Amino acid sequence: MSTLTSRSLALLVEGWRATAPGAAYVALADRIRLLILDGRIALGTRLPAERELAASLTVSRTTVTAAYTQLREAGYLHSVRGSGSVARLPRVPRSEVSAVGALIDLSKATLPALPTLGETAALAAEQLPAYLSGSGFDPVGLPVLRQALADRYSARGLATSPDQIMVTLGAQHAISLIARTLLSRGDRALVEAPSYPHAFEALRHAGARLVPVSVSTGDGWDERMLADTIQRTSPSLGYLMPDFHNPTGQSMPAEMRERVLALAERHGTTLIADETIGELNIDRAESLLPFAAYTSGTPPILVGSVGKTVWGGVRIGWIRAERSVIHRLVRARSAGDLGTPLLEQLLVTELLRDYDSILELRRQQLLAGRNHLTALLAEHLPEWEVPTVNGGITLWVNLGQPVSSRLTLAARNEGLQIAAGPLFGLDGAFERFLRIPFSYAPADTEQAVTALARAWGAIGRYPIAEGHPLSAVV
Amino acid sequence: MSTLTSRSLALLVEGWRATAPGAAYVALADRIRLLILDGRIALGTRLPAERELAASLTVSRTTVTAAYTQLREAGYLHSVRGSGSVARLPRVPRSEVSAVGALIDLSKATLPALPTLGETAALAAEQLPAYLSGSGFDPVGLPVLRQALADRYSARGLATSPDQIMVTLGAQHAISLIARTLLSRGDRALVEAPSYPHAFEALRHAGARLVPVSVSTGDGWDERMLADTIQRTSPSLGYLMPDFHNPTGQSMPAEMRERVLALAERHGTTLIADETIGELNIDRAESLLPFAAYTSGTPPILVGSVGKTVWGGVRIGWIRAERSVIHRLVRARSAGDLGTPLLEQLLVTELLRDYDSILELRRQQLLAGRNHLTALLAEHLPEWEVPTVNGGITLWVNLGQPVSSRLTLAARNEGLQIAAGPLFGLDGAFERFLRIPFSYAPADTEQAVTALARAWGAIGRYPIAEGHPLSAVV
Repeated sequence: MSTLTSRSLALLVEGWRATAPGAAYVALADRIRLLILDGRIALGTRLPAERELAASLTVSRTTVTAAYTQLREAGYLHSVRGSGSVARLPRVPRSEVSAVGALIDLSKATLPALPTLGETAALAAEQLPAYLSGSGFDPVGLPVLRQALADRYSARGLATSPDQIMVTLGAQHAISLIARTLLSRGDRALVEAPSYPHAFEALRHAGARLVPVSVSTGDGWDERMLADTIQRTSPSLGYLMPDFHNPTGQSMPAEMRERVLALAERHGTTLIADETIGELNIDRAESLLPFAAYTSGTPPILVGSVGKTVWGGVRIGWIRAERSVIHRLVRARSAGDLGTPLLEQLLVTELLRDYDSILELRRQQLLAGRNHLTALLAEHLPEWEVPTVNGGITLWVNLGQPVSSRLTLAARNEGLQIAAGPLFGLDGAFERFLRIPFSYAPADTEQAVTALARAWGAIGRYPIAEGHPLSAVV
Repeated sequence: MSTLTSRSLALLVEGWRATAPGAAYVALADRIRLLILDGRIALGTRLPAERELAASLTVSRTTVTAAYTQLREAGYLHSVRGSGSVARLPRVPRSEVSAVGALIDLSKATLPALPTLGETAALAAEQLPAYLSGSGFDPVGLPVLRQALADRYSARGLATSPDQIMVTLGAQHAISLIARTLLSRGDRALVEAPSYPHAFEALRHAGARLVPVSVSTGDGWDERMLADTIQRTSPSLGYLMPDFHNPTGQSMPAEMRERVLALAERHGTTLIADETIGELNIDRAESLLPFAAYTSGTPPILVGSVGKTVWGGVRIGWIRAERSVIHRLVRARSAGDLGTPLLEQLLVTELLRDYDSILELRRQQLLAGRNHLTALLAEHLPEWEVPTVNGGITLWVNLGQPVSSRLTLAARNEGLQIAAGPLFGLDGAFERFLRIPFSYAPADTEQAVTALARAWGAIGRYPIAEGHPLSAVV
């Protein structure tokens, strides 16, 4: 059983007292509850002893005891003999499950399924008998699909042969496989902050120490920080989203790509570019190539997927890399799984026949969604700073106050599930930000903004005293 | 880059001199080549320096240099400046790839695809539109499939509810997820020897130190050794195949199951029973229940899959465990992948509607295959000791001499790919054994036995001097 130290928990709840009204124990319990709900405290983790946490937070032990008691009564902690308090989720009675299902869930930045997917699946089923004579185990990918993926890269300006492609079970599977194959425990891995939290998980799981560089809606990548970090820490790996970065929507300019790739090469850093949402262009005028097109040296590893363009229920991703890297990844794969299902691969092969039409449909949906959400936010939450983005799926909204965790908790009571800003950062950063996807149906988006406005109002009734002296709150 | 120490390599090639005629360097190169081919030396691994290996093997440095040179010229090693000799595979020119494809491959113990799979896939495609309204991400499994799997366990004598089931991307994915979730680095994990090598990989990858207990064709599980090992090492996890154990085909008796489960519970060992081939009964008279039915205490974790019963190209497995364990596994999953494809799950849901007919078809195929292979071996290789098995897919044949690696190398020249005995053990054990699947088409089985007989003849022309004094060979 893993244990959270009082120091780590204190970091995770940083600012809890400044952002909440009422009794301190309620505020503390609320913050811990959110951390459990959004996975930042894993289920089964042992929380620090009350006495230690009280010391780390410089509050009385009574406050911590009351907070733990509230969490225990609400079902978020249970006491294990000899192990203290362990994080859990409350058992939801079966009758309430459907009611919970009626929540609007904007915690995922995904598009609705392609409506014609059933028909395409039928076409794939027709192809299947031609493949039944083999063993079926396919750790590298069907030749027909690898060819189609290579052809797409070539058509987009990056000459690629099928043996530079490996098919995976989605982008996260690809990231995890790359991380566990190329990283040794204790290696440094460069990540963007904010970024895609499951990539943090995969890198950490492979034993990486994460070193963050910042990306912001206004200025994009902090290139000086990026260069400094690479020079100072020589990370083994770097994980970037150079196109329509999730969550900020930023794209890295062409010249910066060249400089970053050259710098990484000099310091022995293997860069991974996650281009899962890289083709979800709305109205970006600048035409940018796949990230690997910006170097004549060792190419970065590209990761792609249909999970965002087609549907999350189709679990096919891929890796584009040098042949020698593909070889290593294929050999390493069997420790985790034995290959990609063939029917699923045939489905994606069919989808790639007219992928440009799919992307054009998505462009129209995202254009409408972005404009709709931007207008709704301007109307209902004019004090929020809403960026302009030209692609991707999300707006990274600046709330102006460090209340994202509190806001998302309040939004839950209004029927909206949405991820708090700190989920996208390391160590509790981004409490002033909220990621809002604009990929949902118009009615859902409207209901979500209504819920956010109500939640905002609810937490606004207890305004935040910035610089509130911490010692005064107990 | 990982490095193989001279000590480890010496262990892996143990016995190389006693089993080969001719020049020592050829014998050494042959053994290293096999280790690279079957994955026991991972691609990209740095081999020990010549001087060190020579010392560990007590041979002259010239012998090691000559062996490395031969491997380099054949494409199995390449020299990396500053890094010595690194394992690789030879580039196969495109024109030869199809010829290589004509090899008979008995390295996998799998059954041919169910011939009606295309039609079943069409039925699954028809169901897909009903699921398109969700996000598609499904880390736990479709309710309809979990219900069907739970019902099957209940019908087989182990009452199970759907929330005790998690759907995975095949059994190997399940084993790997369990290992990385429940093990801490350095924990001990009990394994059978011989056993399924990918399970070793998954457990090692999670940081486990493997402790083996032996299973043999004659006597099954060495229960005293099993009990001693659990008592002495208190392993965190144990990985067993209690039914038609791969590769020996043995089944653990009911009373031993009860004793083993009770002992594991006393020592805090979580047992995993891999039942992937557990339902491939041919003519076992004793009726045995799923492994978890033999305890009223904490149930072991069961792993199942359709990879062997239906086809390797359908990548669906599952885990049956206590709800709290399922919760932990689901939460841990996202570090590696984001869920199981829905079309694939619908395909398996359809297959489960008449799974008993599938199993009956397999029973007939395996009955015929086992009898056919047994007869062919008796005719062409009468000196081999061929066990009697009543289920599963493979015969674990005793060659009578420690020549399995040499035999499989010779068989390659006869057009047969087959796994050497040591692949199924730890540290180079099982050089006297060969796993032969009886699940292939009759013509392939005949061709395979012909190739084995020729290879046996080829290596037999240089009989092995047992007890051959090692110092005399250089």
